[in-house]
Amino acid sequence: MTKRFDSAVERAGPRFAPWLSDTNDLTSRNIEASRIPGLVNLSGGLPDPVLLPTKALGRIATTVIRDYPHDCFGYGPTAGLPQLREAIARRYRARGVPVVAENVLVTASGTQTLDLVGKLLAVPGDTIVCEFPSYAGAFDAWRPRDPKYRHLGLRAGDDLRANMAGAAFAYLIPNFSNPTGYLVTEEERLRLIAAAWTSGTPLVEDDPYGSLYYDGDPIPTMLRLASLGRENLDDCPVIHLASLSKQLAPGMRIGWIIAAPATIRALNTAKQATDLCSNGLAQCMAAAAMEAGLIEECHPRIVSLYRTRRDALCAAMSRHIDDWFTWEVPVGGMFVWATARDPRIDVDLLVDVGMETGVLVGAGHHFDPLRIAPPAIRLSFTFNDETKLELGISRLAQALEALGTRASSVPQRSCSSEMGA
Amino acid sequence: MTKRFDSAVERAGPRFAPWLSDTNDLTSRNIEASRIPGLVNLSGGLPDPVLLPTKALGRIATTVIRDYPHDCFGYGPTAGLPQLREAIARRYRARGVPVVAENVLVTASGTQTLDLVGKLLAVPGDTIVCEFPSYAGAFDAWRPRDPKYRHLGLRAGDDLRANMAGAAFAYLIPNFSNPTGYLVTEEERLRLIAAAWTSGTPLVEDDPYGSLYYDGDPIPTMLRLASLGRENLDDCPVIHLASLSKQLAPGMRIGWIIAAPATIRALNTAKQATDLCSNGLAQCMAAAAMEAGLIEECHPRIVSLYRTRRDALCAAMSRHIDDWFTWEVPVGGMFVWATARDPRIDVDLLVDVGMETGVLVGAGHHFDPLRIAPPAIRLSFTFNDETKLELGISRLAQALEALGTRASSVPQRSCSSEMGA
Repeated sequence: MTKRFDSAVERAGPRFAPWLSDTNDLTSRNIEASRIPGLVNLSGGLPDPVLLPTKALGRIATTVIRDYPHDCFGYGPTAGLPQLREAIARRYRARGVPVVAENVLVTASGTQTLDLVGKLLAVPGDTIVCEFPSYAGAFDAWRPRDPKYRHLGLRAGDDLRANMAGAAFAYLIPNFSNPTGYLVTEEERLRLIAAAWTSGTPLVEDDPYGSLYYDGDPIPTMLRLASLGRENLDDCPVIHLASLSKQLAPGMRIGWIIAAPATIRALNTAKQATDLCSNGLAQCMAAAAMEAGLIEECHPRIVSLYRTRRDALCAAMSRHIDDWFTWEVPVGGMFVWATARDPRIDVDLLVDVGMETGVLVGAGHHFDPLRIAPPAIRLSFTFNDETKLELGISRLAQALEALGTRASSVPQRSCSSEMGA
Repeated sequence: MTKRFDSAVERAGPRFAPWLSDTNDLTSRNIEASRIPGLVNLSGGLPDPVLLPTKALGRIATTVIRDYPHDCFGYGPTAGLPQLREAIARRYRARGVPVVAENVLVTASGTQTLDLVGKLLAVPGDTIVCEFPSYAGAFDAWRPRDPKYRHLGLRAGDDLRANMAGAAFAYLIPNFSNPTGYLVTEEERLRLIAAAWTSGTPLVEDDPYGSLYYDGDPIPTMLRLASLGRENLDDCPVIHLASLSKQLAPGMRIGWIIAAPATIRALNTAKQATDLCSNGLAQCMAAAAMEAGLIEECHPRIVSLYRTRRDALCAAMSRHIDDWFTWEVPVGGMFVWATARDPRIDVDLLVDVGMETGVLVGAGHHFDPLRIAPPAIRLSFTFNDETKLELGISRLAQALEALGTRASSVPQRSCSSEMGA
């Protein structure tokens, strides 16, 4: 895997590292879609901008610039401003997890938590264990580390310890996986923690959607379960990732990692080499927003709007595409994962034909490099209102008709029975 | 270079990637220094916080949050908000460089420009060419790419084409190198560009200090020289890095890369995998600050203060440490590079003894992994006022006395003659 400059092509500009050419086209598709008037984008996992508390954030910005001008605009500590590390720690302590500031590294977004974890734990050629399908953006973040992948097999009931053994780390989104929307049960979480202990493999818990429960009580995070009865996280096998993007405002680019102090110190070195420190104003605003209870204030409106839209999307799916797809209604998060009844479906062709009929959906294989799951699509319900969700799914049905792949088999499962409606 | 978990140590927590253990101790020394009351830190390259235009930035924050709330707090394009890409392009066009928005990638700091260039151009095992001594933070940023290094030999008059041939890229800070303060001449810049053309090796021009000229007229950047007489940057061999950290406010974490459109598109993919997009509010503020002329407003005060301090540092050096060190007075930037007259000096011991006498200086070898240069120290003059600079250097002289390494040789060059004072 060497890269050299060929004199014959020197005028054609530099050669780029090979990992760059492997990236999926989900994002470029989304950008393309944003340029097509009237197209309904069900692919991107975007929050609805109407939920941004812009006025409250504006007031907070004014206050923190007045009170902490040097924290806002000078260089800050690599691991984050002390007041934000402490504010984050306090939130976890309030939920019964023994987190102190030394367990917290502030990052510039959830994506940066993934980049730093890859730099921290993966050496080129290492194996990363995931429950596939899994988040495509994480694969992007780790591609420069040139990893191999192994399937965790949690839902298949595999031997977790055996599958995790010898890997750089195991990665999971227990609260409403992106893309599947699956909620890992408490029993499964306990099995994962036990496997992390016995295999010695760190368990990376990515939790961007943990505040987006639409039904029932939240299940404790793996971080919490692993620390039950302990006074600190010193030998905790869980590395916990989170961000403000889905709770407050993605443009703030504030994320964080919770882990044992030794892990945080090593991550500090990795972040120093990556961007030295995060934006000061955003950190001051995040700390002040936590202090003022702004996240809790925003929470009911976010959950209520997204719950309605989840129900609207699934109802539209039942009306229009039940003959072609099966799905589970997610308890939370942003996505519905729809599996094709006919495994012969050409999902990439469906995406193309969908674009022609005015709807964009995400091809499932981008989330599934080992092709563990049958053909599927990912649908997001957070960005579009109910009218657009109905329009998008009815267009998807047109695309399916046009594709001529209507399955003749008996439906295996219908949305309405899952919803209990 | 594999990393596996040893069952004997599994309770000791995860193993970290080997690159993390190679990092220099400059930063940890600086943190240690900040905890010692009265210690004069001449090691860190910090701007003086009194120069931060916090009131003006506060007014700008209020305005952009009111006018562009979704740009400030929603997800933005990976390459940067269009208004900031255009504002940056306009600044370069005003200096005669044919830059358009498609040539600009906005980053979250100068350090991120280095991380992204490493991810873009270096495959593990590749060679990076630098004029040593060079910036230690760049080595940190590239360490995850596991590069080899080769000396450029610009000042030694080496064959640049031969030294650049086959490398992933060549890296240079032409305007007041960190750590040496050296200003690359226009003739040398033209030789470098010619070598980039003939070798096919991209030339990375890092320009964080380009606004910090204290004497004489600025020399055109290599980006400008390489684009003279051209209508665009399409086949420009220079990749130009810059940031707002030394011109406006480091806490904003706004940097950028200027390059050919194909390079910017590939960098866009790398940034997407690194942090998805930069902070929206900081980007809106940067665009508005450029629009309002705030950088130009701040410039005279920054230059005037730092010029006075450079002169004060060099005068104190002439008074106190001329018997032990030689140096060139830098035309700009933040650093003076002092070379030991006696090559037998133990610089690490000097740093330790300096800490005991109340002054911190940077050991030169951190910037010089190939040990090209004789033993030296890096001194920064931007953060401390004249009284503290005098105090720090007099303490350094005490440390040198204590070290007992006073050279008996005839001084080769004195500061006063260089300064023309």
